[in-house]
Amino acid sequence: MKKNSLKSLFNPASIAIVGASGKKGKIGNIIMENIMKLGYGGDVFLVNPSCKFIKFKRCHPSLGSIGKKVDLAIICVPAKFVIDVVKNGAKNAKNFVIISAGFSETGKEGAKREKELLAIAKKNNINILGPNCLGFIVPKIGLNASFAAGMPDAGNIAFVSQSGALAVGFMDKAKEEHLGFSSVISIGNKMQLGESELLEYLAEDRETKVIGMYLEGIKDGKNFSEIAKKVSAKKPIVILKAGKTAKAQQAISSHTGALAGSDEITSAVFEKIGIMRADNLDEFFDLLQLISFTDAPKSKNVAVVTNAGGAGVLATDSFKGKEIELAEFVKNEKENLRRNLPAEASVENPVDLLGDAEEIRYQKTLEILNNEKMGCILCLLTPQQQTPVEKISEILKCEKAKNKALIAAVFVGGERVEDSIADLKKNNVPCFSDPQSAVDAIDKYYKWNVAEKSAPKKLAEKNSLERKKQSNEIISKALADGRKALFFPEASEVMEKFGVKCVESYGIKPGDGVPEIKNYPVVLKVDSDKVLHKSDKQALILDIKNKEALELELKKLRKNFPDEHFVVQPMMERKTEIILGIKKDAIFGPVVVYGLGGIYTEVFKMVDFLVLPADFDEIKKNVMKGKLRFLFEGARGQASYNIEEFARILKGVADFARKNDKVREFDVNPLFIYNDGREALAADVKIIL
Amino acid sequence: MKKNSLKSLFNPASIAIVGASGKKGKIGNIIMENIMKLGYGGDVFLVNPSCKFIKFKRCHPSLGSIGKKVDLAIICVPAKFVIDVVKNGAKNAKNFVIISAGFSETGKEGAKREKELLAIAKKNNINILGPNCLGFIVPKIGLNASFAAGMPDAGNIAFVSQSGALAVGFMDKAKEEHLGFSSVISIGNKMQLGESELLEYLAEDRETKVIGMYLEGIKDGKNFSEIAKKVSAKKPIVILKAGKTAKAQQAISSHTGALAGSDEITSAVFEKIGIMRADNLDEFFDLLQLISFTDAPKSKNVAVVTNAGGAGVLATDSFKGKEIELAEFVKNEKENLRRNLPAEASVENPVDLLGDAEEIRYQKTLEILNNEKMGCILCLLTPQQQTPVEKISEILKCEKAKNKALIAAVFVGGERVEDSIADLKKNNVPCFSDPQSAVDAIDKYYKWNVAEKSAPKKLAEKNSLERKKQSNEIISKALADGRKALFFPEASEVMEKFGVKCVESYGIKPGDGVPEIKNYPVVLKVDSDKVLHKSDKQALILDIKNKEALELELKKLRKNFPDEHFVVQPMMERKTEIILGIKKDAIFGPVVVYGLGGIYTEVFKMVDFLVLPADFDEIKKNVMKGKLRFLFEGARGQASYNIEEFARILKGVADFARKNDKVREFDVNPLFIYNDGREALAADVKIIL
Repeated sequence: MKKNSLKSLFNPASIAIVGASGKKGKIGNIIMENIMKLGYGGDVFLVNPSCKFIKFKRCHPSLGSIGKKVDLAIICVPAKFVIDVVKNGAKNAKNFVIISAGFSETGKEGAKREKELLAIAKKNNINILGPNCLGFIVPKIGLNASFAAGMPDAGNIAFVSQSGALAVGFMDKAKEEHLGFSSVISIGNKMQLGESELLEYLAEDRETKVIGMYLEGIKDGKNFSEIAKKVSAKKPIVILKAGKTAKAQQAISSHTGALAGSDEITSAVFEKIGIMRADNLDEFFDLLQLISFTDAPKSKNVAVVTNAGGAGVLATDSFKGKEIELAEFVKNEKENLRRNLPAEASVENPVDLLGDAEEIRYQKTLEILNNEKMGCILCLLTPQQQTPVEKISEILKCEKAKNKALIAAVFVGGERVEDSIADLKKNNVPCFSDPQSAVDAIDKYYKWNVAEKSAPKKLAEKNSLERKKQSNEIISKALADGRKALFFPEASEVMEKFGVKCVESYGIKPGDGVPEIKNYPVVLKVDSDKVLHKSDKQALILDIKNKEALELELKKLRKNFPDEHFVVQPMMERKTEIILGIKKDAIFGPVVVYGLGGIYTEVFKMVDFLVLPADFDEIKKNVMKGKLRFLFEGARGQASYNIEEFARILKGVADFARKNDKVREFDVNPLFIYNDGREALAADVKIIL
Repeated sequence: MKKNSLKSLFNPASIAIVGASGKKGKIGNIIMENIMKLGYGGDVFLVNPSCKFIKFKRCHPSLGSIGKKVDLAIICVPAKFVIDVVKNGAKNAKNFVIISAGFSETGKEGAKREKELLAIAKKNNINILGPNCLGFIVPKIGLNASFAAGMPDAGNIAFVSQSGALAVGFMDKAKEEHLGFSSVISIGNKMQLGESELLEYLAEDRETKVIGMYLEGIKDGKNFSEIAKKVSAKKPIVILKAGKTAKAQQAISSHTGALAGSDEITSAVFEKIGIMRADNLDEFFDLLQLISFTDAPKSKNVAVVTNAGGAGVLATDSFKGKEIELAEFVKNEKENLRRNLPAEASVENPVDLLGDAEEIRYQKTLEILNNEKMGCILCLLTPQQQTPVEKISEILKCEKAKNKALIAAVFVGGERVEDSIADLKKNNVPCFSDPQSAVDAIDKYYKWNVAEKSAPKKLAEKNSLERKKQSNEIISKALADGRKALFFPEASEVMEKFGVKCVESYGIKPGDGVPEIKNYPVVLKVDSDKVLHKSDKQALILDIKNKEALELELKKLRKNFPDEHFVVQPMMERKTEIILGIKKDAIFGPVVVYGLGGIYTEVFKMVDFLVLPADFDEIKKNVMKGKLRFLFEGARGQASYNIEEFARILKGVADFARKNDKVREFDVNPLFIYNDGREALAADVKIIL
């Protein structure tokens, strides 16, 4: 039902403009003019209690007085009047666009107003875009329901922007770049309709081939992830997500009150769900152009064809670290190229057609290479004395029309190439300013295309309820005792239920003597949530050789830490240390973080993220394409570590993370893993409640 | 004397065109037309033995028959005639540009021809640009001595290109971007005049403010480094160096026969000598525009001013990992901004002027922030309904003229901003397409500006001759024995002379019994250049507890490695392992490579380069800004390692590298370093001859 209603929001048969005005420069006037003069064919009603007519058109005092229902009401009255307008108009319109500012972006007062508005929307089952937005534009039906000037070209890009001002610049640039839009939607404060709702709507929108979003924050990351994963399986999504740095996050919260999550987690989530993340504005344009104009490359093989050796070398450089690669030409192709090109030309990849190449060399070469096995042909050109730029671009258009390899162009130049570039773009041949940006964009598009498109599996879990119950009992007991953390013996009991084996340990309560221990040497540690970095605070004594020494050390420690619990463990051989834990991301919820441990964890930053939910196979894949892969492959003659075991442990941690919302922080540090058949063992587990 | 002669090459009073032709489309015709019709005011002589006149202008049969000397002869006859032309013409011209292809780029035959040509040049003390080049252009004197079309604008950029075809595209694009050139020089095969010679010339050229180079290879890296360091201390050098990947290196060697060095070393060298390296073509343009238009920022403080919050957030993101940073405004500035901007505007950095900002808000804001303490003001704009784009660009021009902070612009848009962008560029206000590219370029310019501009110091070395003599004796003896490597005891003797202390060791020759050793446990290793990865080939036995065990192990090892030497060393505590050695780079000569050792060296890639020569202070700085810095700072409560000691060791290795050209490969692996006062010790040293 929601989908239907969004359809009538963005394709309304009738529109009322509440706050329409005859006064030039006022938002209500700009929007009225945009709707009435740029080709919209539906019914338009003006609403403004203080006028009877605006430019000879009748003006209604309220939505109710129009006398019939409208599909869409656009509100551009001051914030203080908005709630009444919506409340009273809810029976006359089911879709509202609220242009007016003065809501949550302005502080407490505004936030209260916004909350009230949302309640009205829910109660009346109406849709509201905004508040504090630019409006939206659907070029195909000539509808500019915004206060941005002009009408972008119709096309297949849906552009959703959390910044109205950026959307304006974007549309202006898009016109020059011959990019067309199915819709441009400014989401403002995203009170009700945000990125998730629009993804769902646009996924079904036939006019939309690619969804581009500029976002500063993401609302309800879990819901967003689920929807985006489904949508990206059939339509490419490109997101320019701002807020990478702490400073940027500050700018955001003062800008729209959006909450920005940790940037690395955002990237991990985007990768998991198949969203192409644009690194900057230029790349965002490049990706939208590429996807709008052409289908994804069918293979990773790329041929580079150039009339300038130097450009070919630069293109070759660009493949560093990419999945797409310079194709190895087959014998037949090489011979064919050799027959058709001058002796000095290079028939290796990049194919160097030489500086005096006319269109025929491009044509022959493209005809030979434009086949089903070639993913992409990247055509480079510099406008030399003898270069027939226009004729060569005709060849490219012609080869593009064959619909085999992806044809893309980099014409390095100015005046001598600009008309041809424009013509290529009009004919949907993607053009880039630099071989590097071409290869970057094509690589992302290729990766999106080959990413697994399967829907997330339902995870079957054995004994799930039982172990949840047991672990909850332990946690509840600790909470009842007024504690903020589990003692190590408790934590290890919980962990073992989730498949993480912990080192044998002996708890020492206040007043207890030393326990009977068979095997020395041992380690003695303070077991308290008040002592976090044990090695820093001298709360950890290593290599205690016998019972007498243990007694002595315990006595010493008790002086510094009276009333604390202690724990004794066998001294472990320090081999490979892993750190793993849960980061509760403000946007996306719990994410498993795992990496190489030891004192240099922060220096090496060999850390990966596991975005939940994830089944066993997915976890294995996540590890094997991540930074810890080297451990499980066997580097430099080392026996490899056990990936099955490690994935099982991660799975246990992931299950624990999802089952226990009382746990505030959680980490295993270190987990010792071995490559000699011994079992992995957690030496310390911290469960903070 | 050379500088003088290059001056008459690029500013000739008279030119002879050898191979001039009346036939349209021929290179000799294009060059003739370019020289005669685009404004060159000097004397021009045509040379072609098969014509008497070309277009009513007299044609001479040879250079000699002109009857007087010319400053410059441009040769565009087929390769086979070039040598005779130059040989016979050497007394009539002291500068030659050889356009003709068919030299070293074509293979053996051509390389031979080129060698002969070089010999003639040396013998006759003449300058030759090329062969296989496009020629050159000096716009200020209206001289287009190339076969590229048109005349770029005169300006302060000297552009040197190893690819003529790329230069053509570059000039075309530059016109559109309002970039002007002091000269455009195609260096072709760089037979005699290459990047180093041109750097020297352009350093003295008053018209040149910034030198931009596209290079595929570098000739004589040592000489280049020395010259570039001197030049970059006074003029910025921007280099787009192609050949980053192995594939690219292949493309190069088939392209111009240039030898590409390892890309990481190139970057390290560029950084050391103060060259700005452009990562790609777009960045190359951005940097040249920036430097051509404006002086470097005087401080790292950047203010961002925007009429679109989103653009401000994106700009903030761009500062991640940069040295320049968002300025903290002082109280006075904030108050002043507050007074002059609407209440909803943000007076934090980025300053958000709001979507309805007219020129007055930009003006007030820039007036407040444009002062001596502000390094740069980055002005962002999207063309919204109320945005007076032209008027705002007038403000920017005006503020730029005050010559305080660097003023740069990012106008995101198309038609509505393009005229203003063009106008800004004409007025030397640098414009970028994206906040990210603006920040990238400004950061590189800033770093260049604050880099140390001191000339390399002469290194005083103590006992330098003596230790060289002693180590040479050891090496010579090994060579006389027909060995390709030193035995460990020899290598450690050599190393100790250069200040690298090695672990105590006992050599065992074939036939020897086990030596008397005081302290067990020990390690037994095969000591041979034939066994490189000892742990892989089981040529290393650890933790031998006593003499009997040692005898047994030696016996076993001797079965597998008869006739080899062995070495016994005390078992070392594995603490922090360092690997260091020398990489003899094909271009830049010996470079010291040092990094974290251990089995995961390749995985962690915690490796830095020390480009030689380097004195003690420079070595310390190199370590402390590199990847191993964490060791010497004390991470996570660890005691820090001894930087003085480590720098001394690196210095010793560097000295050894520079003194011993008989050493082919050399590494110390591992070097154990300690943070508890113990001395660093090399456990293995490989010196391959």
